[in-house]
Amino acid sequence: MASSATTLKGQPLDRNLLDQTLRRRLFFTPAFEIYNGVAGLYDYGPPGCALQANLVDTWRKHFVIEEDMLEVDCTVLTPEEVLKTSGHVEKFADWMCKDPKSGEIFRADHFVEDIIEQRLNGDKEARGQKVEEAEADGADKKKKKKTKGKVEAVKLDDAVVKEYESILAQIDNYNGDQLGELITKYDLKHPATGALPSPPVPFNLMFQTAIGPSGALQGYLRPETAQGQFLNFAKLLEFNQNNMPFASASIGRSYRNEISPRAGLLRVREFLMAEVEHFVDPEGGKKHERFHEVEDVELVLLDRHVQLAGKTDLKKMSIGQAVRDKVVDNETLGYFIARIYLFMKKIGVDESKMRFRQHMANEMAHYAADCWDCELLTSAGWIECVGCADRSAYDLSVHAKKTGAALYVRERLDEPKIVEEWELEINKKLFGPRFKKDAKVVQTALEETTQAERETFAKTLADGGNLTLKVAGVGDGSVEITKDLVTIELKKRTVNIREYTPNVIEPSFGIGRILYSLIEHCYWTRGNDGGDESRSVLSFPPTVAPTKVLLVPLSTNAAFKPFLAKLSKKLRQLGISSKVDASSATIGKRYSRNDELGTPLGVTIDFQTVKDGTLTLRDRDSMLQVRADEDKILEAIKAIVDGTKTWADVEKELPKFVGQELDGDAA
Amino acid sequence: MASSATTLKGQPLDRNLLDQTLRRRLFFTPAFEIYNGVAGLYDYGPPGCALQANLVDTWRKHFVIEEDMLEVDCTVLTPEEVLKTSGHVEKFADWMCKDPKSGEIFRADHFVEDIIEQRLNGDKEARGQKVEEAEADGADKKKKKKTKGKVEAVKLDDAVVKEYESILAQIDNYNGDQLGELITKYDLKHPATGALPSPPVPFNLMFQTAIGPSGALQGYLRPETAQGQFLNFAKLLEFNQNNMPFASASIGRSYRNEISPRAGLLRVREFLMAEVEHFVDPEGGKKHERFHEVEDVELVLLDRHVQLAGKTDLKKMSIGQAVRDKVVDNETLGYFIARIYLFMKKIGVDESKMRFRQHMANEMAHYAADCWDCELLTSAGWIECVGCADRSAYDLSVHAKKTGAALYVRERLDEPKIVEEWELEINKKLFGPRFKKDAKVVQTALEETTQAERETFAKTLADGGNLTLKVAGVGDGSVEITKDLVTIELKKRTVNIREYTPNVIEPSFGIGRILYSLIEHCYWTRGNDGGDESRSVLSFPPTVAPTKVLLVPLSTNAAFKPFLAKLSKKLRQLGISSKVDASSATIGKRYSRNDELGTPLGVTIDFQTVKDGTLTLRDRDSMLQVRADEDKILEAIKAIVDGTKTWADVEKELPKFVGQELDGDAA
Repeated sequence: MASSATTLKGQPLDRNLLDQTLRRRLFFTPAFEIYNGVAGLYDYGPPGCALQANLVDTWRKHFVIEEDMLEVDCTVLTPEEVLKTSGHVEKFADWMCKDPKSGEIFRADHFVEDIIEQRLNGDKEARGQKVEEAEADGADKKKKKKTKGKVEAVKLDDAVVKEYESILAQIDNYNGDQLGELITKYDLKHPATGALPSPPVPFNLMFQTAIGPSGALQGYLRPETAQGQFLNFAKLLEFNQNNMPFASASIGRSYRNEISPRAGLLRVREFLMAEVEHFVDPEGGKKHERFHEVEDVELVLLDRHVQLAGKTDLKKMSIGQAVRDKVVDNETLGYFIARIYLFMKKIGVDESKMRFRQHMANEMAHYAADCWDCELLTSAGWIECVGCADRSAYDLSVHAKKTGAALYVRERLDEPKIVEEWELEINKKLFGPRFKKDAKVVQTALEETTQAERETFAKTLADGGNLTLKVAGVGDGSVEITKDLVTIELKKRTVNIREYTPNVIEPSFGIGRILYSLIEHCYWTRGNDGGDESRSVLSFPPTVAPTKVLLVPLSTNAAFKPFLAKLSKKLRQLGISSKVDASSATIGKRYSRNDELGTPLGVTIDFQTVKDGTLTLRDRDSMLQVRADEDKILEAIKAIVDGTKTWADVEKELPKFVGQELDGDAA
Repeated sequence: MASSATTLKGQPLDRNLLDQTLRRRLFFTPAFEIYNGVAGLYDYGPPGCALQANLVDTWRKHFVIEEDMLEVDCTVLTPEEVLKTSGHVEKFADWMCKDPKSGEIFRADHFVEDIIEQRLNGDKEARGQKVEEAEADGADKKKKKKTKGKVEAVKLDDAVVKEYESILAQIDNYNGDQLGELITKYDLKHPATGALPSPPVPFNLMFQTAIGPSGALQGYLRPETAQGQFLNFAKLLEFNQNNMPFASASIGRSYRNEISPRAGLLRVREFLMAEVEHFVDPEGGKKHERFHEVEDVELVLLDRHVQLAGKTDLKKMSIGQAVRDKVVDNETLGYFIARIYLFMKKIGVDESKMRFRQHMANEMAHYAADCWDCELLTSAGWIECVGCADRSAYDLSVHAKKTGAALYVRERLDEPKIVEEWELEINKKLFGPRFKKDAKVVQTALEETTQAERETFAKTLADGGNLTLKVAGVGDGSVEITKDLVTIELKKRTVNIREYTPNVIEPSFGIGRILYSLIEHCYWTRGNDGGDESRSVLSFPPTVAPTKVLLVPLSTNAAFKPFLAKLSKKLRQLGISSKVDASSATIGKRYSRNDELGTPLGVTIDFQTVKDGTLTLRDRDSMLQVRADEDKILEAIKAIVDGTKTWADVEKELPKFVGQELDGDAA
């Protein structure tokens, strides 16, 4: 979707400049580039790898450790039977179109969205309005055939503009037939070939492979980590000493064979996920005992009703209010939505570029009862970075049904419960001879009747009538049952154990999308013009910054070496990552290179250090420096990295220092 | 291979008992078990997951951070072309046999090894000697069709015993034809069917899949993380400001479609690897500047020559000596072998069950020039857990040749070098007309001549003779070149830049194998009899233990709750993982349960705590306890976890405590 992206400081965001920086500094790079690359596959270089590790570490602390979740690590290879049961083999698909002239294959929803956006932009141009076009996808720019053609200034009817805007607002809500209808109705031709694409067909997004030497066992690469957690439910419950509720969690790769990957890290075929499966009793309104801790958290929400009305108006409200108003269904779902928000804040996401959007009915995955996405605003529009779904009892139920495994909770009731139920007794002596070979099927049909049906049956029998029971495949599909064959009575029973299948609330994080969006949110340029001359800065919070401290000797003078070695070692002992830049570039240049890497702190070793052991400490964002002895500097670094102090605190406590940055190359 | 496995305390190791414990406590579990599982796929539960994370963390500190390696995270999906170039499509295979009667498929080398071991055991039985049979594979026991039949007591000739022992000593050295010959020569029939297996054929171990919606792009799941690192070599060198030597590193999953996975975690189809690729100048003997730090490290070595002589005698020597004696080829290879040893010691591997074995020529991977495995002794015999290979310039060279990418180092020489070379000048005016359509081929053949050949040619021409040059496909395969066509002269040239393809030393760790072997090395039982009544203990070092501290309230009394909460929070702030066991079991039982999980420390909160705030601290291995106030106990915990103090130190400093463990259920 079109957007006018901005940097952390509100400057217009130059996606190409950012992209160049990220590739040059090896945050990430197209995989197999020397073999011309493969769309949708990226490698992380050292800074990207460290940033990712720090995001994962923060996630683990925020979710797994804080709430004592049971972390598991399951295989990616998954046999077909599992994913058939879960519904993925049948339903995990996107709608795919083909251009009949060029043979190009693309996603139907993306195609409709692109062409309609293009027409709206043409209309704006014709009306003399400013066109906010989405940035070209930096990373894919050269290789990707863009669906978009040149924008032609054609004025549309006001009514058509409204229709188009309404389509875009609910673009995720259309199924394949509906997308096909839109293509025909609005004559959405491919701008490059002038042809109408073929009708959308489903394309399953799972990568397939054969397991074992015979090739007989079909398998897939998992599309989510969740299934492994569900299959281990009974073992996890036992490990948790049968206590409910509890959550499992998993961090690992998943795979989706995207039809036409685009937008760099935002749509890839192999990605890191972090998922929580929180198992909760479906009775009692899915309360959460820690909900009170988050109920005042204020969130920006975009609910289903607003979207279906073709609008994108955002509401700001506390999660407590949202649950009370039933905008968000229940406390547990609400609790995790708020926890997601707090996680995003902690890693440095720009709050003004975050919203929670509810899925529309057709948009939801086949297993979901409700779902809210945490979306982050980037140069490619609002991007789904976390899904928070209520999967109800779907997965545990289907796997239990298929395998007979005990994927439920048995709970001893505090006090025994008296249950009144219609019980059914068959007179076997007469039943067998009467139905002969069909006896078993008829009996099963009888036993599967509901309580309501039995009540009606009992009344019929008491009134002297016969029962008419539908039994597929027997006679004309229904059989007569006379009163001598069966007795139906209301009976009382004492129950001590309650059995139930837990519901699942699932916060599911796409780490790569979060990582990329976070980079955009932390990015700004130091120069005035924003052009090539301006210096890029990535203002990551210290917690997630790839490297925490840059160590800079004033020059290549040998006198600085022992100080560098000692300091490196001490930082390592404190568990703080540091890098040395002992190149011959000026200090200013070396700092500037590390501002690009997002290193929050810098320490200079100069001739004063050799004399009295004092060091200077520099703040990336303000470029201000303080000077003190080694112990005080290390203490300040540790406090900033641990988050117990900010730079502002340190600046107040330690003497300011002015100097090196400008004349660093004088030594 | 047969072995009489022992526990940490030298007790006979009961693999079944250990296996039950590991599955019951959810260290790992067969994946998809409710769907009857898939051979070679395992999930890690919470303790296994934490143990794995701690091993990875220790690895990262020991290798990546200590040596400032460039960590990367590359994709698992790999296009076919890359793996064709690397040789994996053609050569990454095992030898596979089929039983003609049952259709069972198995690995040829495993089959030969099994049958011959069986015959040797039968011989021992016939001679009245003790038979040391390998433990049944606990995890796979029920499902796996064992190749092994019942041992029959048949005495063999002494000469045959020697032949058999020699075959086992070099079992990894046979290719498919040789394995087939062994099967025929010794009439190795399948004990279950009585049939000779089919001749061995190669089976490629890579999982295949199609990338993208058209299905046209074939890909594989990577069999190692190394290729991703090689393909990024030029970018990494630039990131490292063109400094050599340097290393990249990667931690991630790899996949091998094993023919018949067995032995639980020791042979699986999906596994976590940690690999270092150390790039070094091939000239100057591959010295390593930190070799002096490790040269006195003593290692147990089993070199190639000993194995080829059909023996398994181990030598103990310092790595310095091994490199001086050329047992280990060079300092860099030796440095990493020693570093691997130090890592293994750090995580708690039993030194008496570790050796380094050199690969034999046929056994080495197609890319390796030399390779040493770090092997750990387990109930399944000696297991390869780390490979340390010298891959020479193989990978960088083949990828550079295929793609034209600059996968080499350009080094400015300190002083220009004068090079004397035989240069060759072709008289093009005459050359073309003389050879017509063959001119280009002949010219290339001429240009590809070596310096030595040119010197001979120059002499021949000077002596008035003609050159005879072999050129495949031209005439009868050789052409006459007369002196008017070419001038060959010795010329001087000044060279400022040296270009070279680095060699690669690769320590490659199988984390799952290390994890399982470590569990066996740390395992012992507290009872006397070793039977079901004895209590399992896993004596992990605190660094890698899944959980560091168990918190135990004396009873479910509400008075203990605030103390538990406060302590949990303080430990979390110190970054120390803890678990609460507030169940109603006796304290002794709760501690015993956690000894099984390998939790090194336990803290009890009792009525004395409520009165004066003191706590007791218990040591898993000795079961001894001390008592002190919260600050002192926390300080002791931190010191033990950080490795700055041992339990023995703490025991000396703090007052001993005796009591709860025996009468813990009295309250």
